[in-house]
Amino acid sequence: VVIIATTSFLSEVAPDIRTAVEAGSNVLCSAEEAAYPWAVNESVANELDQLARQHGVSILGCGLNPGFAFDALVLTACGAAWDVSSIRVERVVDLGGFGQTVLKRIGVGHTAQQYEANRRNGTITGHIGFPQSMSVVAGRLGINLERIDREMSPLIAGRDYEARHLTVKTGTTAGFEQRYVGIVAGRPWFECAFLGHVDPASIGKPPRDEIWIRGSTPLHFAVIPGLNPQSGASAIIANSVQRIVEAPPGWVTVADLPPAVATSRTAV
Amino acid sequence: VVIIATTSFLSEVAPDIRTAVEAGSNVLCSAEEAAYPWAVNESVANELDQLARQHGVSILGCGLNPGFAFDALVLTACGAAWDVSSIRVERVVDLGGFGQTVLKRIGVGHTAQQYEANRRNGTITGHIGFPQSMSVVAGRLGINLERIDREMSPLIAGRDYEARHLTVKTGTTAGFEQRYVGIVAGRPWFECAFLGHVDPASIGKPPRDEIWIRGSTPLHFAVIPGLNPQSGASAIIANSVQRIVEAPPGWVTVADLPPAVATSRTAV
Repeated sequence: VVIIATTSFLSEVAPDIRTAVEAGSNVLCSAEEAAYPWAVNESVANELDQLARQHGVSILGCGLNPGFAFDALVLTACGAAWDVSSIRVERVVDLGGFGQTVLKRIGVGHTAQQYEANRRNGTITGHIGFPQSMSVVAGRLGINLERIDREMSPLIAGRDYEARHLTVKTGTTAGFEQRYVGIVAGRPWFECAFLGHVDPASIGKPPRDEIWIRGSTPLHFAVIPGLNPQSGASAIIANSVQRIVEAPPGWVTVADLPPAVATSRTAV
Repeated sequence: VVIIATTSFLSEVAPDIRTAVEAGSNVLCSAEEAAYPWAVNESVANELDQLARQHGVSILGCGLNPGFAFDALVLTACGAAWDVSSIRVERVVDLGGFGQTVLKRIGVGHTAQQYEANRRNGTITGHIGFPQSMSVVAGRLGINLERIDREMSPLIAGRDYEARHLTVKTGTTAGFEQRYVGIVAGRPWFECAFLGHVDPASIGKPPRDEIWIRGSTPLHFAVIPGLNPQSGASAIIANSVQRIVEAPPGWVTVADLPPAVATSRTAV
C-alpha cells in the first residue's frame, strides 16, 4: 500500500497515483479531491480507475472529511432509516492544529480585504471536499444531484489568538463558515454546514459533528466533542490499509467499503 | 434475495437458510444468532458458509441489534480512532412496540418470582445477540475475547403500563437491565449496557444509544433519541438487499460489508 498525503488537488496527486499503480501498489490518498475524482476531472478519474483495474489494485481517497464525517458516517446512519428525504450535517471544527500553509489556504489569518480578494481569485478555498462527500452519498443512495450551491464567509477575530503554527491578530480572519447545499428536484437534499475556527469554543461553538437524516423515521447522530481533524484524518487513513488491500480493483470510495478499523498489532 | 424474519435462534432458521441457499438465493436473516453463527454452533455455521460458497450466494444475519447499534456503528466509530483500548456501548430501548411473545421471552410482564424462575430455566433470555456483536467487532479488530461475562436484572413496574400489545401491572416486570462484558487480558474490553423498558422515559431514561471508544484518541458517539427497535431493524434489513447481492459468497457479517443504504425508488 502506498500512502500519498501531499496536497488537496487531483491534478497534483494524479502523477504519483499513476506511478504507484503502475508499480502494482494499492493507493490511499489524503487529497480531498481524490475522495470522488469524477467530481473534478472525469477523464483523469476514468483513466486511473482503468489503470488500477488492469494492475489489479485499488485506489481510495479518504481522510476524516471527505472520507468519514460527511459521507461514511452519514451512509452508516442512513442504514437505520426507512427512507431519506433529506440530510443535514453540521460540523464545528477546531482548526488550531493545522499548519500555516493550510490555514492560509482555507482562509485563516487574512485581513477582511485580503480574504475577500483571495476568495474571489480562488487562492482561499475554505474546506475542500463537499462535492466529493455529497457525490459519494448521493451516488450510493441512487440520487442525482442537480447542482451544489455554496456560500463562504469569514469569522473575524475579536481578540488575538495564538494557534499552534499561526498568530491570528484581532480584526483578521480566525475562521470561516461554509454552507454547501446539494439540490434535488429544486429543493435542498443534502445540506452541509461547516464552521472552522482556530478556537471555536472561544466564540461559543465547541467542536461537534451532528447528522440529521430526515424521512419517515428521522434520526439524529452526534459526535461530541467533535472529531479532531489531525488525529481523525490520520486514523482513517491508517485504518484503511486493511480494507484497501481487500477492496475490488479500481478507484473505489468509502461507500463501497466496510468500516475502516485499526487491526490489533498482534493480528498485523 | 430471501429474507428470513422468524425466530432468534440459529437452530430454528438453519433449515430455511439451507433451503434458500440450495435454491441459489442470497439470504438476509433477522435471527440475532445469525449475526455471527460461529458463536452458537461452529459446525452449522461452517456447513452453511461452505454451502453458500458452493452456490455463489451470501448469507447475512442482521437487524438493528445485532447488525448495527452494537457492531456496525461501533466499527464505523472505531475508524476515526488511532487505537481502541476499550469500548463501551449503552442502549436505552423502548420495548413498548414489541409483540407479547417477544416481550414475555425477553422478560417483560412477569412477577418477580416467575421472572427469576424463567431466567434460571432459560425461557427468559433478555435481549439476545451480545456475543454475536462482540465477536463481529473483536474479530474485525483482530482481538481475541477470553470470555464474556453477563448479568441481567428485572425492572419492576411502579405503576400499570399499557404497552401496545401487553398490559404490565404494578409490581411485575416492565423491563430489564443487561450488562455484557467481553474480557481481554483479564480486563473489560467491550462493555455493553442495555436497558429495555416498555416506557423508559417514565423512569427517567429516555431512549438513547451511546458509544465510547477509549484509547489515545477517545471518541463519543450518540444517537438521541435512541434507535427505534421496530423501524430500525426493518430498515437495516431492507437496506441490506443491495449489499448482500454485491457481497462475496459465504456467510458474511456486517464487518465485511459497506454501509446498508436505501437505494432510491427510481434507482431500484
